[in-house]
Amino acid sequence: MPTTLEVPARQGRAGLVRRGQALRVINTLGHQVVDFWGFGADDTTLYLSMSHTRVRAGHVNPRAGDTLLDSRREPMILFESDDSPGVHDSLLAACDPNRYRQFGIASFHDSCANNMERALAALDRKSAICPQPLNLWMNIPFTAEGQWQFREPVSKPGAAVVMRALVDCVMVMSACPQDQSSVPVNAGKPVAVHYQLLD
Amino acid sequence: MPTTLEVPARQGRAGLVRRGQALRVINTLGHQVVDFWGFGADDTTLYLSMSHTRVRAGHVNPRAGDTLLDSRREPMILFESDDSPGVHDSLLAACDPNRYRQFGIASFHDSCANNMERALAALDRKSAICPQPLNLWMNIPFTAEGQWQFREPVSKPGAAVVMRALVDCVMVMSACPQDQSSVPVNAGKPVAVHYQLLD
Repeated sequence: MPTTLEVPARQGRAGLVRRGQALRVINTLGHQVVDFWGFGADDTTLYLSMSHTRVRAGHVNPRAGDTLLDSRREPMILFESDDSPGVHDSLLAACDPNRYRQFGIASFHDSCANNMERALAALDRKSAICPQPLNLWMNIPFTAEGQWQFREPVSKPGAAVVMRALVDCVMVMSACPQDQSSVPVNAGKPVAVHYQLLD
Repeated sequence: MPTTLEVPARQGRAGLVRRGQALRVINTLGHQVVDFWGFGADDTTLYLSMSHTRVRAGHVNPRAGDTLLDSRREPMILFESDDSPGVHDSLLAACDPNRYRQFGIASFHDSCANNMERALAALDRKSAICPQPLNLWMNIPFTAEGQWQFREPVSKPGAAVVMRALVDCVMVMSACPQDQSSVPVNAGKPVAVHYQLLD
């Protein structure tokens, strides 16, 4: 049995995932968004790219079965399985310190961008940019005219996705700390999630 | 009268645009996509970000009247006016050398990513990444379920957009060289476009 580890509420975690290994990300309580990034194992200027993935996929947001491409248009990760309803986002930027300042919060507030930085730093890595994440379970319905809305996740407790490394890479997760009432992406209450490294 | 300059077919151009100045991009023949980027005047790790812009705008693709944000969520460019029908894309990555290799083209093929690099180099600048561009006039209709398609532009000859710098920045344009029959984004025939620097 693989070890189950926690991403504490409002925090981030990263790990080196070797080609052929996979990360299983578990939405333990069902209503938590997890911002997810991939980076080259030894080169963070190479990153999982939603924009390149979209060209290959033919649809806007990644789904189970999709090959997720890097920023040089090469396969990086297979989105192998998903036992949630498959509602994820890849349109909206990660929250960052400026996001919360713009809400009028003067003191420090955790953010997905900051979590990504700290999780990479724990692996002695850094990225000059915060790429567009795959926002797992983030429910952002949009119309054909392009209007979108923030909604609560629709996933059940315990729902999980499996992300299989097609090349050695670093995978990063952030349990999104968004807690502002106008942005109910975590149903108002950011909580912990869990993960497993699968061989 | 401002000077009118050409972006030759399949090529790119960049210029430093001071706060308060604007770039007018003209779709001279009406059916040409122009990939458009912005960068910090002295820092290319700061870039115009479609993902951050989208959070503020409330809709997927930029429209006239929108404030376009940089990758630190600060205003960079005002999308001041647009006398085309307003059909632009911000979902699909710029074409790059790998895109054409994957079409089976063994020899060199111009690409928007390469055009961006060369245009920045002409200003003694470089970027480690190719950010998601604002693909002016690129017609990528999508459904509420997220399926999208490549279509020909709907703009009339001479249609123009005005991009006003809210801070000193570098603006980059590429007259998209996409000419593959399965990707009719330039109506099959990449052509030149024109631009003016407005005070």
